[in-house]
Amino acid sequence: MTPTETIAAIRADARFQVACDRLRADHDRTVTDVVTLTEIPSPPFGEEKRAAAYLEMLRAHGLEQVEQDEIGNVMGLRRGFGNGDILVVAAHLDTVFPAGTDVRVRREGTKLFAPGVSDDTWSLAVNLAFIRALDAAGIRTRHDLLFVGDVGEEGLGDLRGIRHLFAKGRHRERIRAFLTVDSPEVERIVSGGVGSRRYRVTFRGPGGHSYAAFGLVNPMYAMAEATRALAAVPVPQSPPTTHCVSVVSGGTSINAIANAVTIEVDLRSASAAELERLDTRFLEIVNEAVATENAARSTASGAITAEIARVGDRPAGETPEGMPIRSLAAAAVAAEGYAPHFEFSSTDANVPMSLGIPALKIGAGGRGGRAHSLEEWLDVEPEESLRGMRTSLAAILALAEMEQVG
Amino acid sequence: MTPTETIAAIRADARFQVACDRLRADHDRTVTDVVTLTEIPSPPFGEEKRAAAYLEMLRAHGLEQVEQDEIGNVMGLRRGFGNGDILVVAAHLDTVFPAGTDVRVRREGTKLFAPGVSDDTWSLAVNLAFIRALDAAGIRTRHDLLFVGDVGEEGLGDLRGIRHLFAKGRHRERIRAFLTVDSPEVERIVSGGVGSRRYRVTFRGPGGHSYAAFGLVNPMYAMAEATRALAAVPVPQSPPTTHCVSVVSGGTSINAIANAVTIEVDLRSASAAELERLDTRFLEIVNEAVATENAARSTASGAITAEIARVGDRPAGETPEGMPIRSLAAAAVAAEGYAPHFEFSSTDANVPMSLGIPALKIGAGGRGGRAHSLEEWLDVEPEESLRGMRTSLAAILALAEMEQVG
Repeated sequence: MTPTETIAAIRADARFQVACDRLRADHDRTVTDVVTLTEIPSPPFGEEKRAAAYLEMLRAHGLEQVEQDEIGNVMGLRRGFGNGDILVVAAHLDTVFPAGTDVRVRREGTKLFAPGVSDDTWSLAVNLAFIRALDAAGIRTRHDLLFVGDVGEEGLGDLRGIRHLFAKGRHRERIRAFLTVDSPEVERIVSGGVGSRRYRVTFRGPGGHSYAAFGLVNPMYAMAEATRALAAVPVPQSPPTTHCVSVVSGGTSINAIANAVTIEVDLRSASAAELERLDTRFLEIVNEAVATENAARSTASGAITAEIARVGDRPAGETPEGMPIRSLAAAAVAAEGYAPHFEFSSTDANVPMSLGIPALKIGAGGRGGRAHSLEEWLDVEPEESLRGMRTSLAAILALAEMEQVG
Repeated sequence: MTPTETIAAIRADARFQVACDRLRADHDRTVTDVVTLTEIPSPPFGEEKRAAAYLEMLRAHGLEQVEQDEIGNVMGLRRGFGNGDILVVAAHLDTVFPAGTDVRVRREGTKLFAPGVSDDTWSLAVNLAFIRALDAAGIRTRHDLLFVGDVGEEGLGDLRGIRHLFAKGRHRERIRAFLTVDSPEVERIVSGGVGSRRYRVTFRGPGGHSYAAFGLVNPMYAMAEATRALAAVPVPQSPPTTHCVSVVSGGTSINAIANAVTIEVDLRSASAAELERLDTRFLEIVNEAVATENAARSTASGAITAEIARVGDRPAGETPEGMPIRSLAAAAVAAEGYAPHFEFSSTDANVPMSLGIPALKIGAGGRGGRAHSLEEWLDVEPEESLRGMRTSLAAILALAEMEQVG
């Protein structure tokens, strides 16, 4: 069967219809769940409370081997009838919002406003709805479904939850494919994982009086040299590869040579090889800039040094065209009348992509916006939400190989 | 008479001896005055209270035309017998310490500890002691002595008090020479006024996401280009000329192109012409860096601009070798057994120097240290203090042309 035929067969199946009816009947419950979860703060590196609540929800949904791993991910297994291969269906527990952010949900009509409500708390609730729908319809799949609420997707979390799942998780050997349900829109499928390396580089020197110590090496100039050199590094447009000196600070007084100047640098690429090349070049640039400054001015009171801290490392990867996971997901999207398109982004799917494991980011259904801002919103209007949920449920079933289909 | 002979004649004069006796007899009073004045806070741009107190002290010392000018300087005239030419004897009222600093004086033996006590409050008190000594000895001078407590010597005060005195002060046409008594040490005579231009330059651009908006102009790179270019500008060692990018800040997040990056820049020279040349070159560099960045990347979302604020402007100048004021001051220092040396610095004397008016910074006597720090101290041990006071009093009398000498 073609991917389109597979999706059509699933959608035509009476059991799928029962599952969809259950999604509809359960919609208010799903909305209640997203409100409950959203109002449990889950700041970066502070996902414990939400993780504990979600663990209980997974348990209440009858999954097996419900547990929290060492890094903080919570998960449970819905057994398949096959050989134990696993399709992961994940959503991330963390938000970008710091502890103390007001996370109460305000509702206006079908719109919910709250930090984190659409990214990615909605997906946590929708994945539970999927479990209930599958159970209500008695749907079995060949592969085990491992439902995961993972930590550390955002920012400096550096994908540590999913990284751990693949590096040390007890199921890691059996994961055959990976879906992260992240944000509402289903037509935007992420098949390319933009990798990043992030650095904080501090140039240090002896400092001194701007006038009396004139001629001494100045970390400001090493910083400027490195910044300018990075700006000039050519990068391919495809795979998209970028660099940015984003933040700078240093110096204490207008009449003093700075002791230290710090830059924060963001390097990204959709290609692991390009990212590696850029990363290597950047580190060379820093060392060259230090050497240039130490040669340009006096080191009599001390030389310039650079302290390089890697503060972020997300692997690049891609689920390339031609992989069945892509065509099945696209067919599921198209079957609901959406126009699927594939994007590059940085999500939990980066990790399996970088390991060559088929992986995508798909949507939870509904509409949302202003993610990462205090005005973040989610529209749970039932028709659009259910249309999206059906889309992703069909994709999951195609990938997990729904029993008696095809 | 040679300068040495002139000083010797003054020192040998019986009236000078009476004056010195009075300095000695009055020493406790002078110390009381420095404590009183030090304990009146006089932060940058907040000299009013100390100025009011000093105004009353000048009045109590029997000066004429005691007044406060529009900018805040307080002053009074001790008339000479000549044609009304004036020798200014100034000390500055302001300290570097912000409002709220604890300015209480702590005494340990002959040492006084307090912010501002030696720079320059001691000189305010010593100048009053000079008036009392001259009066006690009945010494008359050819030139009028204009005793000034001036505002705005420190930092961003930018010499505004003395600048005003020479630009708009009612005595300005008659000022023949200028002495600022600043800090205790008498052997360090400042004859070169290091001028400075200080800038705060903010490079602005459209900003954007570090990845999604890659390729847009980045103010960070314009900053780096300008910084690097200034670092490479050649400057003469003599007259000493320097440049420094001292402070930098900009950017908000590692994953964003900055909207704004600001640098603070200090340009100095002992030569007005060199300072002007450096200043012109720096402004060119800023504009070139902006143009370079706007040519290097896309301005589709907006171009880089630079906002240039001049935050400091102190004129350069010099009282060159061969001027009588230098040799007389040096002879007065040598007569007390000190080894005089001439220095470049940035003091109130910069202003008259830049106008070609003979000017020096001289000392008040005694010893001090840690100026501009909270541990600032002044040692008022009588012998060393009186030795220094005699030195500067002799220099003042030589310059003001003491009656019946020479």
